[in-house]
Amino acid sequence: MRDVYIIGTGMTIFGEVWQSSLRDLYVEAALKAIGDAGVDHIDSMYVGTMSSGLFVGQEHIASLLSDYLGSGGIPSTRVESACASGGLSVRQAYFEIASGASDIVLAGGVEKMNDGGDVTYALATAADQEYEAFHGVTFPGLYAMIARAHMHQYGTTREMLAEIAVKNHENGADNPHAQFQMKITREAVLQSTMVADPLRLLDCSPVTDGAAAVILCSEEVARKSGHPLVKIRTSAQATGPIALHARKNPATIPAVATAAKKAYQAAGTTPEQLDLVEVHDCFTIAELVVLEELGLFARGKAGQAILDGQTRRSGKIPVNTSGGLKSKGHPVGATGVAQIIEIVEQLNHTAGKRQIEKARLGLAQNMGGSGGSCVIHILEGLS
Amino acid sequence: MRDVYIIGTGMTIFGEVWQSSLRDLYVEAALKAIGDAGVDHIDSMYVGTMSSGLFVGQEHIASLLSDYLGSGGIPSTRVESACASGGLSVRQAYFEIASGASDIVLAGGVEKMNDGGDVTYALATAADQEYEAFHGVTFPGLYAMIARAHMHQYGTTREMLAEIAVKNHENGADNPHAQFQMKITREAVLQSTMVADPLRLLDCSPVTDGAAAVILCSEEVARKSGHPLVKIRTSAQATGPIALHARKNPATIPAVATAAKKAYQAAGTTPEQLDLVEVHDCFTIAELVVLEELGLFARGKAGQAILDGQTRRSGKIPVNTSGGLKSKGHPVGATGVAQIIEIVEQLNHTAGKRQIEKARLGLAQNMGGSGGSCVIHILEGLS
Repeated sequence: MRDVYIIGTGMTIFGEVWQSSLRDLYVEAALKAIGDAGVDHIDSMYVGTMSSGLFVGQEHIASLLSDYLGSGGIPSTRVESACASGGLSVRQAYFEIASGASDIVLAGGVEKMNDGGDVTYALATAADQEYEAFHGVTFPGLYAMIARAHMHQYGTTREMLAEIAVKNHENGADNPHAQFQMKITREAVLQSTMVADPLRLLDCSPVTDGAAAVILCSEEVARKSGHPLVKIRTSAQATGPIALHARKNPATIPAVATAAKKAYQAAGTTPEQLDLVEVHDCFTIAELVVLEELGLFARGKAGQAILDGQTRRSGKIPVNTSGGLKSKGHPVGATGVAQIIEIVEQLNHTAGKRQIEKARLGLAQNMGGSGGSCVIHILEGLS
Repeated sequence: MRDVYIIGTGMTIFGEVWQSSLRDLYVEAALKAIGDAGVDHIDSMYVGTMSSGLFVGQEHIASLLSDYLGSGGIPSTRVESACASGGLSVRQAYFEIASGASDIVLAGGVEKMNDGGDVTYALATAADQEYEAFHGVTFPGLYAMIARAHMHQYGTTREMLAEIAVKNHENGADNPHAQFQMKITREAVLQSTMVADPLRLLDCSPVTDGAAAVILCSEEVARKSGHPLVKIRTSAQATGPIALHARKNPATIPAVATAAKKAYQAAGTTPEQLDLVEVHDCFTIAELVVLEELGLFARGKAGQAILDGQTRRSGKIPVNTSGGLKSKGHPVGATGVAQIIEIVEQLNHTAGKRQIEKARLGLAQNMGGSGGSCVIHILEGLS
């Protein structure tokens, strides 16, 4: 396999972007990434989107977006794995370059969630429709069950969950692309509206419009580009039981552990060597469980570590320096790409106030639904 | 790039399959393909589906289907490009093996169209929603406009179109997986209900449930398997204007010509060297235009060649020996995979009554919407 590098990034603002349609959002992010990379063409493109069909009544968007980007008829492919669609977009571009079939590929993700469809219904189609969604459970309910199980088994507290939201908003306050660029207090989280006991409004990531894109390329193109070198050390993916009832322990997310094991093995790294991670905090409990599945903390120990500040920018392992899905926003198809952009900026030392000193090795973890699928990328800054 | 082979195929019956759900269909085809290949594991899997979200309210199906297949947590990715989703499933599996990342990959496609959603609306989301579908045009209307333009420019007749349906039903009558295993007459086509002038009911492919799957592998695995060797000579993909109004000539499908040019170049072949082709005859006019875009006939000349029998099994270039979308059925996400299965069976000389003697080189052409995207595979039998 050939090595693969990232030499350009672009993203829109995340938020309620009423002035832009799905196609506007994707094209804006794509053109920014192409401009940032300084390339004069792309060989092909990928689009990660969870449900443009249900959100805005448009399938076949890989064709539509290639057309609106003015790409001149290049191959364009949509990939979907619910909220992990963005990570998969990067992964498929990675294979195409690693195989030698292409040298420069655009990997983007987009979701337009505030423009029509029933958002709660559309998101619930990421669960097992026949065994979960059909019976009325939606995502806050599924993650609330994970939270209850974790609290019961490990003594995890409401304060620990609240602290995740507080920390992510602290980071997001310094991210000019974030939907909520403001700090919140632990009290605000604990007193916010109950959504699905024990999860409250400020435990939940928001409904967001947005797009993000990166330019992947071969080593030869990367070296000629003059850009700082960010290499994809590995791309790992796994699935697991899509429905909660099918998991041996509902306080775990097996797909994350499986993908993490593969990623560390392929990259020849351990969790201890990572300088920062972006994880899929669609709900606060998700961040906590994922940190344990990634092996960054022992099972049942992430909560106390979070209270102790170990996941802050100044802590042992900075988590979600971008603000995470909670503060940066969660346009589901774009999220996995935006996570990778945060890692690239950190490795290139262009993250401004959010910069982690001497960041060299970063991991992005993106997952679908209640964790039925997971994709992990480990990136290394070589400059 | 490593060479990639196909060593197993499996498909369900195509039709109104009320007894099977989407997950049942995919798992049935996948297990048949795995059994046919005789492999004891797969490294990863792909799922081509156009719109499980709109048809049955289920996204995240790559995770769901991996789970129901009992795959043990392997990577699973859904790809979509409207009716070209199946072809793209094979293409992404091809890249994964060509890159060296995996040795054995399952590429499947599935669509459950008879089970709930508004089929005409769902299919229309493959057109440009804002500029075409929103204003009321659906796919029979779009292809009717292509037909009118072709008739106007080249004198194409209703009889030529009808003959395509007659020929495809003649082939489908010999295909045990086909939805309509029966012959029809030219008169029946010409007298069938008008759908969108000049297209009548028997010019249109049906609404179909079904799944199809193939096992792709490295050369080493293929040689050890003892199966006849079918090599993917090339996988080519292109996009073009998604909306008819954006094409210089509405009687053409630019994405097909672009993909074909790439395919012939990469495979080092010419149209004349092909022994058979499977093309995307979602409507009779589509088959006619595609044959011209593939360079099998000069523009404006395919109609007469069809009337002359040149595309029959006994003709110069057999087209849609499977029965095509018209007779075999068109479960949109499965179609591209099923086309490849027909080519594999022909190259392995296991196509029974449909067998083309000495078939060695075959092409499968799969497209999305009114031709905004196209994927072409050229396969070679080496046994």
